[in-house]
Amino acid sequence: MTGGRTGGYDPLVNPQPIPAQTDPASLAALLAAARLDLPGVRLLTEVAERESYRLDETAYLSAGLPGAVALPATTAEVAALLRLATAHRVAVVPRGAGTGLSGGAAGIEGALTIALTRMDRILEIDRANLCVVTQPGVINAVLKAAVAAEGLFYAPDPASYEICSIGGNLGTNAGGLCCVKYGQTRDAVLGLEVVLADGTVIRTGGRNIKDVAGYSLTHLFVGSQGTLGIITEATLRLRPAPAPRATLLVFFDTLDAAGDAVAGMTAAGLVPVTLELMDRATLVAVEDWHHLGLDVTAAAMLMIESDAPGSGATDELDQAEAAALAAGGRSIIRAADAAEADWLRQARRLALRALERQGTVRMEDVGVPRASVPELLRAIERITAAHGVRCATFGHAGDGNLHPNLIFDRDDPEAAALTHRVRDEIFRAALDLGGTVTAEHGIGAARREWLPIQHGEAAVGVMRAIKTALDPLGILNPGRVV
Amino acid sequence: MTGGRTGGYDPLVNPQPIPAQTDPASLAALLAAARLDLPGVRLLTEVAERESYRLDETAYLSAGLPGAVALPATTAEVAALLRLATAHRVAVVPRGAGTGLSGGAAGIEGALTIALTRMDRILEIDRANLCVVTQPGVINAVLKAAVAAEGLFYAPDPASYEICSIGGNLGTNAGGLCCVKYGQTRDAVLGLEVVLADGTVIRTGGRNIKDVAGYSLTHLFVGSQGTLGIITEATLRLRPAPAPRATLLVFFDTLDAAGDAVAGMTAAGLVPVTLELMDRATLVAVEDWHHLGLDVTAAAMLMIESDAPGSGATDELDQAEAAALAAGGRSIIRAADAAEADWLRQARRLALRALERQGTVRMEDVGVPRASVPELLRAIERITAAHGVRCATFGHAGDGNLHPNLIFDRDDPEAAALTHRVRDEIFRAALDLGGTVTAEHGIGAARREWLPIQHGEAAVGVMRAIKTALDPLGILNPGRVV
Repeated sequence: MTGGRTGGYDPLVNPQPIPAQTDPASLAALLAAARLDLPGVRLLTEVAERESYRLDETAYLSAGLPGAVALPATTAEVAALLRLATAHRVAVVPRGAGTGLSGGAAGIEGALTIALTRMDRILEIDRANLCVVTQPGVINAVLKAAVAAEGLFYAPDPASYEICSIGGNLGTNAGGLCCVKYGQTRDAVLGLEVVLADGTVIRTGGRNIKDVAGYSLTHLFVGSQGTLGIITEATLRLRPAPAPRATLLVFFDTLDAAGDAVAGMTAAGLVPVTLELMDRATLVAVEDWHHLGLDVTAAAMLMIESDAPGSGATDELDQAEAAALAAGGRSIIRAADAAEADWLRQARRLALRALERQGTVRMEDVGVPRASVPELLRAIERITAAHGVRCATFGHAGDGNLHPNLIFDRDDPEAAALTHRVRDEIFRAALDLGGTVTAEHGIGAARREWLPIQHGEAAVGVMRAIKTALDPLGILNPGRVV
Repeated sequence: MTGGRTGGYDPLVNPQPIPAQTDPASLAALLAAARLDLPGVRLLTEVAERESYRLDETAYLSAGLPGAVALPATTAEVAALLRLATAHRVAVVPRGAGTGLSGGAAGIEGALTIALTRMDRILEIDRANLCVVTQPGVINAVLKAAVAAEGLFYAPDPASYEICSIGGNLGTNAGGLCCVKYGQTRDAVLGLEVVLADGTVIRTGGRNIKDVAGYSLTHLFVGSQGTLGIITEATLRLRPAPAPRATLLVFFDTLDAAGDAVAGMTAAGLVPVTLELMDRATLVAVEDWHHLGLDVTAAAMLMIESDAPGSGATDELDQAEAAALAAGGRSIIRAADAAEADWLRQARRLALRALERQGTVRMEDVGVPRASVPELLRAIERITAAHGVRCATFGHAGDGNLHPNLIFDRDDPEAAALTHRVRDEIFRAALDLGGTVTAEHGIGAARREWLPIQHGEAAVGVMRAIKTALDPLGILNPGRVV
């Protein structure tokens, strides 16, 4: 079991070598200086402590053991750590709660992981300007609850919201269940404080809704997965709390019918807050575990939610239901009240955990232009069936973003290799439809070789030029993203 | 009159010298090669022709006479022109329709202006994916009309939409009248084709709603005012056509009351499609010219519009009216129908032209966090009164974005200098409120010295590092933005 986890990256899943940018002597020198000058920084150097920072939530991906883990409590400490990392040429892995799905925060053998988990204070809720100023270590659900207590709403909503941190959400430009209506994390960011590779602290943006003074560094740092700087503070946009959600479940006899229903809702101009799909394999896994009463004979289920005010929610779900019926939907369930809606929503939130009871899950994250969801569903079904690989697909159908989950036995090297090839075929199918290999999880370490395939060498060259301009020594999360 | 327009930049309004990056011999060599190899490119070299590319809409700003103007018709021609510019080290000014308000597309003495006006085709309206693929030379209003014919809506809505081009909108991340609800131009961009300084053509994004593969180059190029590359194609997000707008005008006895009403609407969580302010000086100018029946005894007017579906529009305007009355609003006008709403909307659209009948208008573009609109209004009034400078203020109050228009006689050098000092005081006041010196017009040439004051030298250093990485010879719009 542990064999796959040691010795750095598996060449199978990350064929490009990580540049060796750290050595034990450099790290030791950094740690000695940090112990002397930075008494507030907690340093973890025992193997058992470091082991818990090796992986993120990509259990299928091999990762390195950090040489040390630093837990700063202030921006000044993060800056001091990066000054030391620059001075000693030590590679750094910025990390939030470690719930990422791209290997972006997983360990690099011998490098320094800087975890932002102790910077977990909400600094200000600015009701008048509808924004919140927060440190990166705050858990998404904690932030949501704090602003909800003021009648406000922080929209970004990753499925892992109860355990993921805002810093990780910013690093990956995390998506989630309500992007159809409210966008991804980037769309909620007004300003940042960022520590650059050399320890310089900058601020981008602020509390202004509109600001075109210079390049949009805010948008650039969000989604850069710690390769351009470490985000130490963020100003995030809030909204007035929307109406409670009305929830509709529709079951379909074929994946095609479900895909057609999604296309029909898009064409009708509906912007529901949630438009999620689960296929039969996912329904069965959830039902086996939690007995919610889902129809496991269906090929797929759509969950549609509306938070429109007044009678708008009923109107919106009526229109969604009409589009679903027109596409062949059957057995419709509408939640009678908020409690029942919340309970139905659990079906979607439990999906990944339910699948993980069946084996190692390689969760992918392909996206296509919305109208191509039916084609992508067919391609996933065709590819996985051809290779005899178990797959359960769910995802944010309203955004064109599907998560095919390839389930395999990670102790069987052939199964892992086959899963990898199947993934590559699914990536190719998504790109052939004008799609993306990652809609919300990030390139990280897991998908890096696909970046030039998707964007072309010239565009990736621009990204690398930016990376080199901001991190000339290449110490920030080397081997990730670009 | 022409005296102010010749001889390059006025040190008063742009104290940093433009680096001399072109000379007549280099340009002549470029033109000779272009005549030989690029028969499809129209080249303008006569003085009279070039003169019409000297200025943009910043009439108060001196600008250089382009050495030549190139009008390419294809991406390949733009790429070939930039390869030549790189080879001959010729500075290039990318330009759209020339309606910008920052001097960003104004001429540089002896440089090559590349105008994208001939690349004016809408390439595809993709109904199923709610997006449009367009060349940059398409006029905003033409694009709006073309997609409206398909029942769709392109939201970004600069006041100049009838004459400004999509390429210019992208270059400046243009705002407009409906940003409160629909965001700025950047928020509508899904993908770009960009020609880099050396002629390399890249694509960013695509038709996917969500895509986190690598850095967001799309967001970086939008708003970079031609300093990082030339946008030759864009994929823009559309929406289903919203309901016709319902329009409400409210008049106030004091600017403070109007500002308080805006703050009240924000606090109430209203997201009207439009929330515009006009002060008395603007009302008088419009009324003098067009006799719309506006109440010119009021200190300010707010225009609030809703395009919410069904009864939502009436509900939203009812709530806005309640907030306005609570803040001291009086004499409320509601448009009885769409034609009357359109007519009232003209009041706002005509504002700049009405003021231009009174003298040279220096239109500024400050923004503050929304709750600080009343303070910004007071600061503008205090500063302009103290210096005895005529000022008419209107703007997008719902975004915190106000346009103080300083009206002066441009043939009076003392008046121009005083106007410049007043502008600087207004900028300082906006920054003291946590604001920005430009919310939607851009840094361009007109506000460049304020970029480090607003963001700090370190953040501007990051912008310059990106600029240098992408344009190492500094040929793209030198002296603008960074």
